[in-house]
Amino acid sequence: MKELEACHVVVAGLGLMGSSLAAALGGHCRTVSGLARRAESIEQAVKRGFINQGTLDPKEILPKADIVVLATPVRTILRQIDEYGPLLADGSLLIDLGSTKREVLEAMDRLPKGVQPLGGHPMCGKERSGLAAADPELYVGCSFVVSPLERTSPAALDLGRALVKAIGGRPIVLDAARQDHLAATLSHLPYLLACSLVQTADSVTSSDPAAWEIVAGGYRDTSRVAGSDVTMMLDILSTNRREVLDSAAVFRDKLDHLVELIAEGDDEALAAVLASSRAERWRMFP
Amino acid sequence: MKELEACHVVVAGLGLMGSSLAAALGGHCRTVSGLARRAESIEQAVKRGFINQGTLDPKEILPKADIVVLATPVRTILRQIDEYGPLLADGSLLIDLGSTKREVLEAMDRLPKGVQPLGGHPMCGKERSGLAAADPELYVGCSFVVSPLERTSPAALDLGRALVKAIGGRPIVLDAARQDHLAATLSHLPYLLACSLVQTADSVTSSDPAAWEIVAGGYRDTSRVAGSDVTMMLDILSTNRREVLDSAAVFRDKLDHLVELIAEGDDEALAAVLASSRAERWRMFP
Repeated sequence: MKELEACHVVVAGLGLMGSSLAAALGGHCRTVSGLARRAESIEQAVKRGFINQGTLDPKEILPKADIVVLATPVRTILRQIDEYGPLLADGSLLIDLGSTKREVLEAMDRLPKGVQPLGGHPMCGKERSGLAAADPELYVGCSFVVSPLERTSPAALDLGRALVKAIGGRPIVLDAARQDHLAATLSHLPYLLACSLVQTADSVTSSDPAAWEIVAGGYRDTSRVAGSDVTMMLDILSTNRREVLDSAAVFRDKLDHLVELIAEGDDEALAAVLASSRAERWRMFP
Repeated sequence: MKELEACHVVVAGLGLMGSSLAAALGGHCRTVSGLARRAESIEQAVKRGFINQGTLDPKEILPKADIVVLATPVRTILRQIDEYGPLLADGSLLIDLGSTKREVLEAMDRLPKGVQPLGGHPMCGKERSGLAAADPELYVGCSFVVSPLERTSPAALDLGRALVKAIGGRPIVLDAARQDHLAATLSHLPYLLACSLVQTADSVTSSDPAAWEIVAGGYRDTSRVAGSDVTMMLDILSTNRREVLDSAAVFRDKLDHLVELIAEGDDEALAAVLASSRAERWRMFP
């Protein structure tokens, strides 16, 4: 396989993740092309210097790519893998940025033999979505899961890792099942909690104009990820359903237990649970 | 009543909130004294310039105070109101910083007639507790609920407001029931969610060393307040029990509904709930 510096990279999808990646790649590869659904996205991305050129036509650009990065919502990624596969050059690398990996890797396993597939999941993002929010520093310092398939060659994995490092990320090799299991609790569940909290506030306090005057940092932080892109999150939840439901069930038990201790006024037991949560939180983030 | 500039302010409790308030008050009143349980706290607070002097003896200092600020956990505040009441000078103002107000105001109503009581709840804080974490800027820009009793004179309310403004806060007058109702959802519930999330992660993912390598910003923010001081939170939960339980019940319904939609694979309904949560979150924090 070519070195990253010699590669023509095509980024499919110029939203927040794709355009930030394209912007960060500049100078680390031969050329960066964009593939999008809307001409304005290409135009904007070229204008802002994120890509060298772009097109709306996969047939035109994909056969010329050394690396193709799918930066779209997970269910679009699943469709693109099947649609783009036949267009990809032998020896090219296909990597995605989807937040769930099991279904993506199953689809990647159906790719033509000559194509090297690699699952990817950067553990970063922000609530603003779209090209307008692009940030070449988005991936700096961020953990970036890479999930190779059995068919993925060591050279392809190395090239994927080199790409992650080029944009400032820390590649972490994880298999799909383990990544989806961890992401359910560490990323997808917090989103459900944030959404449910926002709905609770909407139903309990929004009729009182004082609510937003006194809203505190705890609420702001706990609800932050509820502002995430809906299509992206919907695809994540639908392709990691079982893990998310399992994690939510554990959460419910934990919350129910806390609520029970509060209702019973069992101070000693409640203090023990709160203290262990506190210790664990400080252990995680010293 | 005296102007704030002419007042001797006694801050009882030199943890994060008390010592930060004392530090911020410097220059805005005649003198600031500390009242604490441990000599080291007084020593440290004097050394760092937060207070002019301090004592461990309420009998010595309280009769000389124009304003007394109770900066301790809520159930300690409840005890101190009864214990300190007889020591307070006629015409002095007693204000607290507790996060729940109903029980505090009930206790304040038992104070000797000559004392002017005012409930207070600054909507700020941080996870680090104690004098070592003190920050004179802690209250800057923060909403600070003040809850007058029927017996509170307009002059006492004005003096309380002047104190809040002097430390950089925004005074918001709210009655105790309304404040406790709002705080349950906007502050106390997020704490329960954060603790339950940390426990979920502890039980689901902590056996996998990769978990902390890939933990993302969503988890970090959603779990942040789980690091809060346990005694403080325990007192809050126990003195706002009914409101917290009501709010948690609404939250559970919202979460259960989301979980149901995910389990059923009802994409359209799920998308609608997520989109409305997203819109609401952006409306709250544009």
